[in-house]
Amino acid sequence: MRRVYLDGNATTPLDPRVRAAMEPWLDCGNASSLHAEGRAARGAVDRAREQVAALIGASPREVVFTSGATEANALALLGAVRAGGMRAAACSAVEHPSVLRVLESLRPAVELHLVRVGADGCVPADATLPAGATLVSVMLANNETGAVMPVTALAESAHAAGAIVHTDAVQACGKMRVNVDELGVDMLSLSGHKMHGPKGAGALFVRRGVRLEPLARGGEHERGLRPGTEDVAAIVGLGAACDLAARETDARRAAWEGLRTHFLARLAAGLPDVRALAPPAALPNTLCLLFPDVPGEALLAGLDLEGVAVSTGSACASGAAEPSHVLLAMGLERAAAERSLRVSLHAATTSEDVDACLNGLARVVKRLRTARV
Amino acid sequence: MRRVYLDGNATTPLDPRVRAAMEPWLDCGNASSLHAEGRAARGAVDRAREQVAALIGASPREVVFTSGATEANALALLGAVRAGGMRAAACSAVEHPSVLRVLESLRPAVELHLVRVGADGCVPADATLPAGATLVSVMLANNETGAVMPVTALAESAHAAGAIVHTDAVQACGKMRVNVDELGVDMLSLSGHKMHGPKGAGALFVRRGVRLEPLARGGEHERGLRPGTEDVAAIVGLGAACDLAARETDARRAAWEGLRTHFLARLAAGLPDVRALAPPAALPNTLCLLFPDVPGEALLAGLDLEGVAVSTGSACASGAAEPSHVLLAMGLERAAAERSLRVSLHAATTSEDVDACLNGLARVVKRLRTARV
Repeated sequence: MRRVYLDGNATTPLDPRVRAAMEPWLDCGNASSLHAEGRAARGAVDRAREQVAALIGASPREVVFTSGATEANALALLGAVRAGGMRAAACSAVEHPSVLRVLESLRPAVELHLVRVGADGCVPADATLPAGATLVSVMLANNETGAVMPVTALAESAHAAGAIVHTDAVQACGKMRVNVDELGVDMLSLSGHKMHGPKGAGALFVRRGVRLEPLARGGEHERGLRPGTEDVAAIVGLGAACDLAARETDARRAAWEGLRTHFLARLAAGLPDVRALAPPAALPNTLCLLFPDVPGEALLAGLDLEGVAVSTGSACASGAAEPSHVLLAMGLERAAAERSLRVSLHAATTSEDVDACLNGLARVVKRLRTARV
Repeated sequence: MRRVYLDGNATTPLDPRVRAAMEPWLDCGNASSLHAEGRAARGAVDRAREQVAALIGASPREVVFTSGATEANALALLGAVRAGGMRAAACSAVEHPSVLRVLESLRPAVELHLVRVGADGCVPADATLPAGATLVSVMLANNETGAVMPVTALAESAHAAGAIVHTDAVQACGKMRVNVDELGVDMLSLSGHKMHGPKGAGALFVRRGVRLEPLARGGEHERGLRPGTEDVAAIVGLGAACDLAARETDARRAAWEGLRTHFLARLAAGLPDVRALAPPAALPNTLCLLFPDVPGEALLAGLDLEGVAVSTGSACASGAAEPSHVLLAMGLERAAAERSLRVSLHAATTSEDVDACLNGLARVVKRLRTARV
C-alpha cells in the first residue's frame, strides 16, 4: 500500500538535494582538528552557517549550531536566565513543551507569566506583557494550529519594557518569511528536520551583545556556547535545507494554499459537521480539524491503517494521554480538544495525497460512527 | 596524494557497515509519532539501545541517548549535582575538558578536588579520594596518552565513601573491554564517532536508581532525561558501531599491538632521541611521542603536507595555543609538553599507514632540524 505522509509538522521527509549535500560529510574529519581533514570539515560547517544566517537575515557569527530546537530553546532560555540573573519571564500559553517546561522548571526562582491566547490561538498584538518580565518568549507559528503570532509587535513592547525577546521559529522557517531584524527578536530557534533537513541539527540565532550561559562545557566549539564535536553532516544538511527554504518558501506556500482550499472544499462537502480551525494569520500547511463526535486517536489509528499518517497535536506529547494544552488554552473543552486531528502538509505533498487523506477520512469516520450506533 | 589518517582519537572513519545501517534511517518518521512511520523509527531507536547496552553490559533501560559525549558528560555531572544537591566533587587532573570544565563551572557552590596522576598519566589505584566528595568522575582511558585508569578500584573506594561514580569511557569503548558491573560505576559516557560510528550520537549509562536533572526540558523522550526529537539515523549508527565494537575489539587490539611494536621499533632505529610515552596500562592504539627539540605544531603541519593526519593533544583544545593540561599534570615542563605529538591508530589502520607516517616523520624532523641550524 502506498503510504501518504501528512504529518509534516512532526517531521518532514528529507529532501533528496539535502541528502545529496550531506552524503560526502557522513564520513569526515573532526572540525576542530588542524590537519586537512579537520579544515575541510570546518569549511563545511562555516558554509552551512552562512546558509542558515542568510535564511533569517542574520550574520553568520550570530548563528549557534545545536542538536535541534529543543536544545536551542533550552540554551536560549536557561542561558539567558543564568547569564542575566532574571527573576521573571513570560511566554504564551501555547508554546511548545521545550519552551513551556523549561520556563516552568525555573519556578519559583523565576516568576513565569503565561500570556493568554484568543479563541483563534493567537496572542493579541496588544497583549500587555507583565511588568518586570526580563525574558519574553513567543513562538512565531504554532505547531498544532499553524497560528502565526504578532512577534514584531510583541517584541517592540517587550523591548520597551527592557526585556530580552526569544522566538521559537521551528514551524515558521521554510513555511513563511522569517527575518530577525523585521521581527526584532534577540534570539530565534530553528530546526532542520521540520524543513526537509535532517534530524540532529538545529540552530539558535543569538544577536550580537546577548549574553548566554552554555548548557554544557568543554571545548571552544561555537564560541564556547555549545561545546562538543560538530555533527558535520547534519549541520551541512541543515544549511542545505535553509538554502532551499530561502529559495522555495514562496512556491511552497502557493502550493499549500491551493491544496488547503481543495481540502477544505471537499471536507465541507463530505463531512460538513467537521470544523477546521482557521486562525486569521496561519501557516497554509496546517489543518487542525475538530470533529463533533469521534476521538482524534481513533481517527489517527484508522487513517494509519488506511495508509495515511497524520497526528493529534504535537508529536512530542504523543504517548501522553492528555489533550492538547494548545487547544485547551484556546478555550476548547477537554472533550472537544480530544476530538481534534492535525493534517500538516509538506513541500512534497501532492493533490493525490490530499485526496487519499480525504477518502480515508470519510471511510474511517463512517466506520467509527457506525460502530457507535 | 594518498592521505593517511592517524588521528583516530579525534574522530574515526565511519565504518561502511555502520553507514549502510544508517542510510535507510536518514529519511524517517518522528519516533514519537503514533503512526507506522513513527513506530518504525521508535523500533530502530529501541534496537540501537539494545546494541549499546550489550556493549557495556547494561540493561537497555539504563541507556540514555544524547547528541554526543560532551552532552553525556554534562548530563551526568550537572544532572547528578542538581538532583542531589552535592557540595563536593572529585575528578582526575587529566579529564577531558567536557568533564573538567563542567565541574569547574560549578565552583564555588561545589568544591572540586583534582586527583593527581603519576608520571605515567594514571591515577594511582590507591589514590585517596577527598572526604566529602559526593560525585567522583574518572575517565576510563585518556585521549592523549591512552593511559587506562584503575576505575574499578577507584569506584570501590568512592562508593565506600558514599559517592556516585561516573566514568568517561569515550576513548575506551571499541578499544578495550568495558563492562559497567565490572567497573562498578553508576554512570558511563560513550560516543559514536570515536568508534567508527557517526558524529551526533552518544549515550549515557545511568544505573537504575541514580537520579539526574535533565539539561533541557520538553517532551518525554528518553524518559524525560533528554528531550528532543531523536536523531534516528545517528542513533542507529551508534548502535551499529557498538555492535561492531562488541565483536571486533579483540581483533582490533591484536592488530594495534602489532602495529605499535612495529612503529616503536622503526622509531627507535630512525629517531632514537624521540621518546614514546608508555603508560603501564594503555590503549594500544595511542602513541604519544615526545620530541627533544621540535615543536608538535610544526610536526603536525609538516606531516599534514606529507599527507599524514595526526594531532597534538586533544582536538577539542585545538586552536588553543596552550600546551596539553594532561602532559603538564604528568609533570612535564611546559616546553617539553609543547614538543609532543599524538599518533592514534583506528580499526582500519594498516602497516602501510604506519610506514607512511614514519617516513613522513623522518623527513619532517630532518627538515625542521636543518632549518634550525
